Parts: sequence; C-alpha cells; structure tokens
Amino acid sequence: MELKGVLADATERDWETEPPEAPLSLAVIGLGVFGRKVALPALERAESAEASVVVSGSAEKAAEVGGQYGATGLTYDQYHDGEASEEYEAVYVATPNATHLDFAETAAELGKHVICEKPLEATAARAERLVEATESAGVRLMTAYRMQTTPIVRRARELVAHGAIGQPVRAEGSFNTKPLTGRSPDQWRLDGELAGGGALPDIGIYPLNTARFVLDAEPATVRGYVASPDAPFEDVDEHVAFTLGFDEGLHVTGHASFNAEPESRLRVVGTEGILDIEPIFHVQATRTLSLRRGDEDVSVTTSTDEVTAEFEYFAHAVRTDEPIEPDGADGLADMRLIQAIYESAETGSVVSL
Amino acid sequence: MELKGVLADATERDWETEPPEAPLSLAVIGLGVFGRKVALPALERAESAEASVVVSGSAEKAAEVGGQYGATGLTYDQYHDGEASEEYEAVYVATPNATHLDFAETAAELGKHVICEKPLEATAARAERLVEATESAGVRLMTAYRMQTTPIVRRARELVAHGAIGQPVRAEGSFNTKPLTGRSPDQWRLDGELAGGGALPDIGIYPLNTARFVLDAEPATVRGYVASPDAPFEDVDEHVAFTLGFDEGLHVTGHASFNAEPESRLRVVGTEGILDIEPIFHVQATRTLSLRRGDEDVSVTTSTDEVTAEFEYFAHAVRTDEPIEPDGADGLADMRLIQAIYESAETGSVVSL
Repeated sequence: MELKGVLADATERDWETEPPEAPLSLAVIGLGVFGRKVALPALERAESAEASVVVSGSAEKAAEVGGQYGATGLTYDQYHDGEASEEYEAVYVATPNATHLDFAETAAELGKHVICEKPLEATAARAERLVEATESAGVRLMTAYRMQTTPIVRRARELVAHGAIGQPVRAEGSFNTKPLTGRSPDQWRLDGELAGGGALPDIGIYPLNTARFVLDAEPATVRGYVASPDAPFEDVDEHVAFTLGFDEGLHVTGHASFNAEPESRLRVVGTEGILDIEPIFHVQATRTLSLRRGDEDVSVTTSTDEVTAEFEYFAHAVRTDEPIEPDGADGLADMRLIQAIYESAETGSVVSL
Repeated sequence: MELKGVLADATERDWETEPPEAPLSLAVIGLGVFGRKVALPALERAESAEASVVVSGSAEKAAEVGGQYGATGLTYDQYHDGEASEEYEAVYVATPNATHLDFAETAAELGKHVICEKPLEATAARAERLVEATESAGVRLMTAYRMQTTPIVRRARELVAHGAIGQPVRAEGSFNTKPLTGRSPDQWRLDGELAGGGALPDIGIYPLNTARFVLDAEPATVRGYVASPDAPFEDVDEHVAFTLGFDEGLHVTGHASFNAEPESRLRVVGTEGILDIEPIFHVQATRTLSLRRGDEDVSVTTSTDEVTAEFEYFAHAVRTDEPIEPDGADGLADMRLIQAIYESAETGSVVSL
C-alpha cells in the first residue's frame, strides 16, 4: 500500500446516499449542557433530522428552550404521559445515565425510535432491559457514539482493515476531562448511582468503544485499575485504566481521568505501522490523523460536524432500514466491559468474557 | 512555576564536579553488537573511563577487538582465571543476561567494581546473588541504566518533583524494536533461558525503570499481559503490557514489543500538565522533551552521548564514593517487577509487592 493518497476524502461520509424526503422529527430529552449547547444546535444544522419537541424536568426550561428552537416544550411527566407524541418520530435521550431506561421504555411504548447517549445506562442489567424494550416494540435503537459518525475515525478503521499498519498489535486511547472546572461538585456525573461510575462510563467509554470500532474486534479478557484518591471523587472512579486482551496477541489499553491535564488521543500500533488520531474524543475537535510506516508518514487534519452527522446517520438508518453500527448491542457490549473493568479492579483478577 | 526557562541547561550533567586524576580502567566483557559498536566507542570518547581489557568467548575476537582499541584481549576462561587482572579496576558486563552472575562473581572475587548491563540477570534469584556477591566483596555495583545518565531524563525527574505537571497521575512508556530485522532468529534475546524472557527484560525494562526513576516512586501492585502469537517468539514474550499501581492513585503502564512498528516514548500526566520525551529509549537518540500545561507549552531537543556519560557517572561514583542511583537494589527491583509481571500474566491476578 502506498501511503500517498490514502488519506484523500477524509472528511467524506461513506453511508449516505441522498437526503430523505422529510427530516426525521425528534424529541430531545434532557436539556443539560450537551443537549442545549451541542445537540440542539447540531440538529438545527442537520438536513435530515430536526428537533420538534424538547423535554426537561423543568417546565420553565422546556418552554424557554422550546421557544428558542421552535419546538414544543414538555416536562418529563408530560412526555411519559404521551403528550404531543404525534409531533415526533424518534427521541434523543441525553439525561443522566440511570434514567435512560425509563425514557427509552416510554419511547418504545409510544412506537418511537431511540437514539440514546452513551453509556447506554448506568448498569449492564438496565442496558439489557433498554435494548429488550426497543427490540420488543420493533423500534430502532442507536447508541450515540459520535466517534462512529466521524469520517476520519471511519477512515482509520478502513486503513487498519486494509493493512495500512500491517497486523494490529495494540491500541491505546486516553481521554481526560475536568468536570469540576467552573462547576460545582454537585453534579450527576459525580453521583455513582446516577452515572453508573465516574471517569470510566463518562469518558473512558470513548477509547473503549472507539478502539473496538477501529479494530473491528471484540476482547476476550479484561483487566481494570481504578483509583479515587481525591475529594470529591469518593463515590466514583477519578482515574481508570484498563487492558483488554484479544485473540491473536492484540490488546487495547485505555485511560481516563476526571482530574488530570486534558488528553484526547488514540493510537493503533501494528507490525508495520502506527496510526494516531489526536485530538480525537472531545466534541467538534479539529482532528489530525497521522500514519507512519518506517520512514514514510502522512497526515491529514479535518474538522467535521460529527454531532450533526450522528443525527443524520440515525435519520438515514431509520428512513432506509439500513443497519445501525452503534446499535443497542454495541452499547450493551461496552456496558458489560465497564462492569468487567470494575470487577477486575475490585477483585484484582482478570475477567474472561 | 513559569514554564519559560525551565528547560534551560537540558544537556548539562548534574553529578560531576571535575574529572578524576586517572581514568577508571575497565574490562569490557562481551563483544556483541552493543559492546563493540556502542560501548567501546563510548569509552574511547570518555575522559574519566577507558577500556583497558576486552573479554570474549572467542580468542580471535578478543585479540582483534583488543588490537583495535589498544586493549588486552582475554577469553572468558582467562578472565575467570584472573589473567591480566592488574590491568583493570572494574568490569563492564555486556554478555547474555543469564551469564551476568558468573562474570560479576569473578569480578567480586578479584576485588573489581562492576557495571552490569540491564536486566541485572535472567531471574530475580540470580540477580539477588549478584548483588550479594558485590556487597560481600565490598565492590561497587551499577546497573547500566543509561536513561538515568541522560541529562534530559534527569531534568524530567526534577520537573516532576518540582510540580511542573501538578500531582503526577500516571505515566506510560512504549518501546518496540525488531530484533529479527537483518538478523537470524538464532540469537540469545529469543532464548528464554539465556535472556530471562523476551521483550520485557530486553526493552520493556526501559519504560519500567525510567518511569520509576522519573516519578521517584515504587509500585505496590502489578498487572501483566503477555502474548506471543508469532514464530519465532514461542519461547519468549513477543508483546508485553503492564500496569503498576502506586499509592495515592498514581499508575504506570508500559508496553514493549519485538514485532511492532518502532516506538520509543515516555509520557507523564499530572493534574496540571503533561511531560513527554519522544523519542527516548533507543541509544544515542535525539530526544525532545515537551511540557504542556493548559495553553502553555515548551519543548527542547537534545542530543547527548549518554553511553559515555554512563561510564563517566560510574567512574565518578567509584572515585568519589558517592552513591550510585542505578545501583544493585535498583536493578533488583526491576527483576522482581519483571517476575511479578510474568506471574500476573500467567495467573490472571494482580500481584502485590
């Protein structure tokens, strides 16, 4: 493989044919920072999806944000009661992790498709119920892994599959954020019950899912390490590290921290080359993919609107009945891995899957 | 701490006062590629150390290399018999790992100081005997960790100690080499008995020891992962990964491979900053240290003769009776960690130290 030219079209989507006749209408559930500042603006930019309803725990916030986006505002109770359900075809769940199941169950009962934020739920058991609820109702379910709708990440997967780095040997990813910067410790991300953990489900899931996606492989063994030496992280993992073993000698290490200098990187090392994307995980990042093989190296820097792409990917799949790659099974696989990482960290033993 | 200026003097040694009156004379034992192509030329450049004797399994090679460097050539048997022992004050042991003990025991019997290549021996038990032999004889022992005599690595340790990255959270290092490139598989590095393992003792020991050195901390727990899917690595670890847990939430991950695209990097992540040295581990590398803290970053690139520095550090310590940082205990600590990494990989359980 000649490296020159392999990074052409690094910003192109590879799944879309043409926009649907009518945009997919969504109820956006959960008007936290991500819902308001990222998801709703992304839906405004989307051609094939739109926010027609917004749902919040606060009637005031629902009305205010609804007014701002020309959408109907509902409270959580009104949503669960099925109010205005004729105004949306699908729901986007962006509430605290331990509440995803309830919102998805209502959606399933109402016959609405679901795109649900990661992690799918706070526990693997609840995530299983969520997947079952959507399957029984015959509605589509997507786990909102926006890395999988980022063209340059998809390009990385193709390059690895086509042997650009030889046989993959290992991958490593790191993602650190500082949830306390400018915010009170009184937030659901630091509440173990609501979040299902700390750095691991909130940000460690990025290297976890993205490595599995790029390598297109599933681990057989899990080793975990967690540490929470500092307040206010007593209830959740402040720092986490994991090692996933695969067949054929491949392994993946991941790191995440709520209290470290920011990092946002993925590296895949093969017998004949190394592929890096840095920065990668944080939202709307300007990402550089670098590919090195011996003395040759190439790189490309791209800036794409992956959150809009994520909604359009979902809309396209719903309209065309095409498979969803980050489906419920994919989200559930990570929930089981998260559980195994915690179990290994606690017992000090490798967990076999 | 202002980042500007912290990387001044990054090439300066911090241990030397003035050259000794007479250079320390060494017997160089083991005329493999490193002994001949790296160590002997480095000793030629040294002011305070010199090779006065060379020792090989082959009388022809000893004579030839001795002639080249103006040194007396001895066979291993002649060395063990104490021939020409008045011509050297210390020995440099660069033979296959499982033979270090025998050469060091002879040196101790002859009252010679020892600088011994890493790993100290093929097993922790033999390394213990090596340390005991030199201690009983009252001779100095240095483990040849050239990272510790590389000024920029020492500077990294100072920066971490002085809070340049806040509180250290984790370190990670990777070192891959391809011992088969241009060489036959019939080499002692791929012989588990002679080498004491594969990628881990040969190259994984670099991130292992250097992380401990830069962090100035000792781990409490060890998790290991090894895989050897490919011929001719059946007898040794082809790929290895380890996670060391420390008190206070600090952890270190390391990777090494005999069959992957080359890597040679160390990263230390703290609560307030990140320090990288890349490339770092391979011999006579041109190393770049980068320090990032929020929006600030600085870097410096240095090229220093760390092998010459290593011999001069040893000579200085012998002449002045000053402590040796990479002493026998340091070398032995890594042997015990290597053993624990293998044990953890085999049992699937964390090993507590």
